[in-house]
Order: sequence, then C-alpha cells, then structure tokens
Amino acid sequence: MSRKKTLAALSAAAIAATGSAGAVIAASPVPPDNSDAVRRAIDSRTPKNVILLIGDGAGDSELTIGRYYLNGAEGPPMAYETLPFTGEYLTWNLQYGPGPDYAPNYVPDSAPTATAWSTGKKTGDARLSQGMSTAETVPGSNKGFTTTFEIMKARGKAIGNVTTSELTDATPAAPSSHISRRACQGPADARTLCPLETKAAHGLGSITEQQIDHRLDVNLGGGRARFEQTLDNGSGTVVDYAKSKGYQYVTDSAGLTSVKSVKGKPVLGLFHASNMTTQFAPLIAAPTPGAGSPTTRCNEEFRPADEPSLAAMTKKSIELLDDDRDGFFLQVESASIDKRDHASDLCGQIGETLQLDEAMKVALAYQRKHPDTLVIQTADHSHTSQIVGDTTDTPGFYATVQTEDGEPMRVSYGTGKTPPGQSHTGARVPVAAIGPQASNVMGVRDQTDLFYTLIGRERSRGHHDWDD
Amino acid sequence: MSRKKTLAALSAAAIAATGSAGAVIAASPVPPDNSDAVRRAIDSRTPKNVILLIGDGAGDSELTIGRYYLNGAEGPPMAYETLPFTGEYLTWNLQYGPGPDYAPNYVPDSAPTATAWSTGKKTGDARLSQGMSTAETVPGSNKGFTTTFEIMKARGKAIGNVTTSELTDATPAAPSSHISRRACQGPADARTLCPLETKAAHGLGSITEQQIDHRLDVNLGGGRARFEQTLDNGSGTVVDYAKSKGYQYVTDSAGLTSVKSVKGKPVLGLFHASNMTTQFAPLIAAPTPGAGSPTTRCNEEFRPADEPSLAAMTKKSIELLDDDRDGFFLQVESASIDKRDHASDLCGQIGETLQLDEAMKVALAYQRKHPDTLVIQTADHSHTSQIVGDTTDTPGFYATVQTEDGEPMRVSYGTGKTPPGQSHTGARVPVAAIGPQASNVMGVRDQTDLFYTLIGRERSRGHHDWDD
Repeated sequence: MSRKKTLAALSAAAIAATGSAGAVIAASPVPPDNSDAVRRAIDSRTPKNVILLIGDGAGDSELTIGRYYLNGAEGPPMAYETLPFTGEYLTWNLQYGPGPDYAPNYVPDSAPTATAWSTGKKTGDARLSQGMSTAETVPGSNKGFTTTFEIMKARGKAIGNVTTSELTDATPAAPSSHISRRACQGPADARTLCPLETKAAHGLGSITEQQIDHRLDVNLGGGRARFEQTLDNGSGTVVDYAKSKGYQYVTDSAGLTSVKSVKGKPVLGLFHASNMTTQFAPLIAAPTPGAGSPTTRCNEEFRPADEPSLAAMTKKSIELLDDDRDGFFLQVESASIDKRDHASDLCGQIGETLQLDEAMKVALAYQRKHPDTLVIQTADHSHTSQIVGDTTDTPGFYATVQTEDGEPMRVSYGTGKTPPGQSHTGARVPVAAIGPQASNVMGVRDQTDLFYTLIGRERSRGHHDWDD
Repeated sequence: MSRKKTLAALSAAAIAATGSAGAVIAASPVPPDNSDAVRRAIDSRTPKNVILLIGDGAGDSELTIGRYYLNGAEGPPMAYETLPFTGEYLTWNLQYGPGPDYAPNYVPDSAPTATAWSTGKKTGDARLSQGMSTAETVPGSNKGFTTTFEIMKARGKAIGNVTTSELTDATPAAPSSHISRRACQGPADARTLCPLETKAAHGLGSITEQQIDHRLDVNLGGGRARFEQTLDNGSGTVVDYAKSKGYQYVTDSAGLTSVKSVKGKPVLGLFHASNMTTQFAPLIAAPTPGAGSPTTRCNEEFRPADEPSLAAMTKKSIELLDDDRDGFFLQVESASIDKRDHASDLCGQIGETLQLDEAMKVALAYQRKHPDTLVIQTADHSHTSQIVGDTTDTPGFYATVQTEDGEPMRVSYGTGKTPPGQSHTGARVPVAAIGPQASNVMGVRDQTDLFYTLIGRERSRGHHDWDD
C-alpha cells in the first residue's frame, strides 16, 4: 500500500495560463475522442470466463469516498474507474403480500438483489434464488430459480465463490443455494428457522449443506462457525461432510497457498468464524462533534496476515479455476463495505473499498492477458454514507478523515437514529464492465438484466429506440 | 400528465412460471445483446447542434426518487433513462488558499461545477468562469476563461440559455459571464459585492449586463428583479439596456409564444421576479413522524399557466435556434431540483425532476429527426435526499409519498440540522448522452471533461488502457 500524494505533482504539470485571470489547476490531460476505441472494445461474443465483483453497498457515494481517501481528487483513477462501459441498475425488489402481483419494495436487502443478478428474477427480502410462494410450507419443494452457477456449471465451467463475509451470507449464498430465509445458514440455523427446508424434511438443507452439495470448485470466505454446526443426522459437522465429499479444507493464508489444484477436489477455505477481519481499523462516526479529525488517517493495517486479503483470494481463485476446463465463472464480494456502512464506520468502509479495488486490479490484470474474459463490478444496493462539507454539522453521525490529498473529508451517516444502525437506501447503483458482453451494462436497467449479461445474450434482431 | 399505473399490467404479462417455487414478477423483457446497436450509435463527428440538460443536484438518488414516484418501479423508463451512453463525473473543485496548487474541495457549489463544463477548468466556490487569482482586486481584469457559449458563437452557432431559476443564477451564468462572485447578479448587487468588476470600474459588469452584452439569441428563466436593477450610469434598468440593444422582452407564456424569430433580435424572457414557480406544490419533510403519509400524492398542478414549463421553454428555444445558421448550442437547466432538495421539499424536488424529463422528451424528439444533434443530461453535484425504508425513523427529516405503483416511498433529508437547510454532497454524478460525441461520456471522468465533449474533440491517436 504505497500510495503517494499526487495532487501537487500533477497540478504543477497541468497549470494552465489563463490570461489575466491567473493560473489554475487544470484537470487531467484531455483524452481524445474515444469513438474508435469504444468500437473496438465492443465484443458480442459469449465470454469464456466471467469475473463478477460485487461491492456490497458500494453506490456512487461509497465509491467516491473511497477514491478521495485512497487516491485523492486528482490522483490516479481507482481500478474500478477505468472500465470502459458504465451504466446503472435499479435495485427494487418485491414486497410480501398477496401474489402474484407483488408490490415493489424500493429499499431491498442483499438477498433479493443477489437473487436478481444470479437468476434474472425478482423476489422478496431474505429470499435466496427462491420465489415468493411459500416453498417453506411444502417440505422439500425449495428448488427455486436456476442460478448463474448452475448454468455455468452445466456449461462445463469451473466455479468460484469468494467473499469477505460469511460464505453463507446473502451475496455468496444467492448463486449457490435456494432457500426462503437467508438466516438459515448452517444446519442448526435451518432446523430452527427453516424446518421444512432441512435435509431431515427432505429439503435441500441449510445454505452450508447446499454449497457443499453444489460442488463448486472454489469456496472462500468467513463463516466457519456455520460450517461447524452439526448435520441433521448427527453424523458430524458440515466441515466433516465436506471432507467426506473430497473437499480440501483450509483455514488460513498458508493453507490457501498450499492448495495446488481443485480438479475433482474442491477447496473450502473458511478464514474466520464469522465475517473476515476488515483491512482498516474502525473509525465509528458519532453525533456532533463526530469521531475523527481533519488530520485522521485510518489505521490501514488491521487485517491479520493469516486471513488472506480479498485480492489474494481472487488471485488464488483465478489460478485454480484457470485450468483446462471450458472457462470459469468467479463471483467475488467485498462484503463489509455494506457492513461497516451499517455500523457508521468510515475507515472500515474505506478499507473494504480498497479491498474491492485491489481485487479489481487482479481481475483486470488477468483480463488484459485473456480478453475473452468479462469483468464486471457493481453494487447490490446503495447505502447511507454521504460526503458533506468539512464543517457541516449534520443531524446524524459523522466522522472526518484526511484524504490522500491531505485535506479533510467529512462523511455523514444519516439514515439510522440509534448508533450504529444505518440502513440501505434505494438509489440506483453503478455498474462498469470490460470484455465480451460488457457493452450490455450501459444505460439504466433493472438489476435482473445483469443475469443475462453474465450468461450471455442473443445478438440484437431488432433495434433500440435510439438506434436510427 | 396522464401517467397510469403500469405495474399490474406489466407484471401480469411478465409472470414467469418457476416450477414448484411458484410465480413471480419477471423484470422487463430481456433486451438482446446491444453490441451492434451501440456500434452504430457511436458517432465521432463534431455535432451540428448541442442540447445540454442540467438537473441541478440531480444525482442518482434524485433521479431514482423521480422515477419511482412518476413512473413506478416497473413502469416505463423516464426519458432520461433511455439515453444509450452513460457515465459518471467527479465534481470536486478548488479550495481558496495560496495558489497555484489549490487544494481540492470535495463538496462544490454550483458556480465552479458549471464553470467546469463551461470552460474545462476548475475554480473555487462562487466563481463563474473565472480563475482563482483575485481578479476583483485588479479593476477591469475579469476576462476569465473561454466558455462554451463564446466558442460556439464564434463558430456561427445560435445560442440559447434556459433555466427555471433566476437567469443570473450560477448554472446559466457560468457560460454567459465571468465574475468572481455569483452573487453579483444585477448592477446594484455588483456595486456592493464586486465593486472592482462593475462597468463603472471598467469591468465586464454584473451578470445581467454581461448576459445582455453577450447577445445570446435565447435567454429564458426567472430573475426579473435582477434585470430591473439600475445601471451604474443611472440611465435605466438592465431591461431598458436590453431593449436599447434590440432585444425582444417578454414576461409570460403568451409573450414567449408571440416571439417568431431571434435573428438579429435576441429574446430576453423573464417569467418571475425571482426563481420560477415549481411544477408541484411543496411537501416539506419534518422530524419524526415526518410530513406526508403513505397515501400522499403531490399536488402536481402548482405552476401558474402564465409561467411556461421548462419543456415549453425548451421547445420554443429549439424552434427559434433552429434557423439557417450553422447549428445551435442550447443549455437547459431544471434548477429547483437542487433548491427544493435544499429545502427538504420532496414534492417540489420530484416536480422539477418531471420538468427535467419533459424537457428531455422535447430534446429527444428533436434529436430523432436531427441525428447530428448531441443531447446530454447530467447533474452539477449530488445532493441530500435518500430513499429509506418506508418505516425507517431517521435522525434528520423525512417525508413519505405514494408512488405511481401505489406504494409508500419515504425520503430522508439528513445533511442539515436546521430546517430547511440541506447541503450538497460530494458523490460523483451520472451523465447520459446520445448523438455525435456521446460515447465520450462513458466511464468515470472529471467534470471538466464534459467541456471537451461539448465542443468536440480530436479522434483518438493513441489507445486507451482497456483498448487491446
């Protein structure tokens, strides 16, 4: 992490004489017309490989906060700012009530949003790749919607699922399980909360069990305690079950490094009992006068070395998945942008934005050498944090840090009344992409549309309204 | 304004059978791969005509709020959601202090942001197309930065400047004046606040005077009281001055309709003493339990008929500017999205988002018939309002309205402690475009980059990082 102040250097080179009005900092050098480059970047093939990076809760505001703190205003772009094709997704989901015309819910949780891109279908809060009908009242019926992982596996691709949260949390669980409540993570959880969806009830079982049965090649994240819950038949834990199925099981960085191949022996890496440790130490916002000061830099070395970084997990996943099969599909989530935003934790949130960006660098390095790879970054939903003036006193909580420019940046957390509980918000979220199918992220679309970009879609037969 | 509930109709048609898991609402029909359509939509020519629509303060959140209230979640897209090329701008500006290496300011006001796209250069809060050096201490020296209007006029194009705010407010003033303080709107204002920039001091004079001297073809908005201030030489008001220069002067809808041509006789239309009346009546957010209720629809007919809508002003402007000259350049601002956001006024803000969209429809109808026209929509900076859960109790203010879906939507205003004072925020803002040069809005760029998209830029000679 050797980021340097670049504002002074860049601006000195970019000073523009402006006649009698004096000199000011010009922006970065003017890029030329991009028409030819964009035309060349359009690639309508179905990609061989797909790397989908999710910044949980990483809306425009969170990405801008990350950029200013980490790289500064006029510093180099974040990796996530360099993707050529950009667009927006609407993230609404469904309200519970009488169907089948479920009313929209404007502020979704992470289960239906991950379901949206994993299946192309809308569902309700807490539901994972599972429709609104009450599958849980019909034992064994929770087959749910076909997912990206299922489709890609059927195409012979290697599959990876990586997160910094519990591996059983909503985002990694949506493409790897079908269940009516996201809380039914381990078998004991499911016995309490989803009794009709357990294996004992002839259902698919808890999220942990479904993930192991899914036989995905690479499974990395936190959530060890969920996998240490006892199976319905009392024969052991889910970890035991995985081992009995031939999984390689690792629990720290060294263990992950030691894995050399996943052919016929998937890897289950669980690096924390719960969510993995954040990259940066917390800086919790507070009511006036607020935590932090204009000269606060975050403690940027908080994650213990035995927990791999998201970038390290991403790099290892690509190495393992890039075997001689027919390509791979890898979903990578920086989960705790959201979790630290909920907690009004400014430094925590920024560190996880850095983790996302370092993972993006890994993905882009691979994509440059393998242009038949689609790389996409998006968020599941927007969130609370907002950059406000550095002397603005807000009704909620705020914290102030010193950015890479050496300037104070104040961030307000104003959706929750009782610390640390902040809430999701309903604004549309950004998406950016490079590679085959990448142009399909452009415009303003429904989040379910991402599913079709991921699995590849038909060439246009008609034309768009704007296509004369 | 005959918008209809479409959710039920659309969802009924889109129900997807999902095996044993029941039926759910599918999203809109899957659009096919857009590669060919995008390839055809790329146009590297310099446009003949440019229509730039600014939603002041219209970040992702404001645009999503507008969409859900006006069209519903699954209803038809807003016009501003249909543009093919989409991207993001970083909006930081400069802090005052010792130059020339001015530090960045992460939460700008509307003067430097409008200066950014009007001149391609950064400046400080309150400054209009004017650098950071203290021009105001050197009488008559405020020539400032070359603007879009100046460049386009030199190219022989007709020019239009339209807003719902005072015509002298920051956004319309940036491309039409050079001054160190945005508050120096009329001559009396300038004598007090910018004494060294007045005409008496051999400066360019107040914003009103500069706008008249600029001889732009179409000038429409509010701010009549500024133009009724007395000139430095006591010879009359700015309105008198405009008439003496051959301007047509109108003050209501009928007057605007009566204007038939602006060739050699520019039009000055001032439809309100101050900011124009908003389309919707106010609904001011309040501390718990908050104004409005789940069943509140806005009073959507608040603007008096003698004040033209933004769409009507846009339509008339295009008719007048589309004469036999070498094309036109038209800037249109829906100003009070920002002003009502500052005031925690949910309905006010939504009504002005509708005004923006209706103006976009006019622009797109013209663009379809004249594809050598570039149409762009963006915001100058992001703002306060956030969609929160409809039972969420926030520390700031909130209001709840019923959307076009018939569902409650709660919006929180949490950056200001004392009503109604909400503040700008620092998140990057969306941009969308169609027509020649439109592909240059893609990606994440600095707001100054828009200047080069507006004036047209050189074809690529090198290649981008992502262009293999």
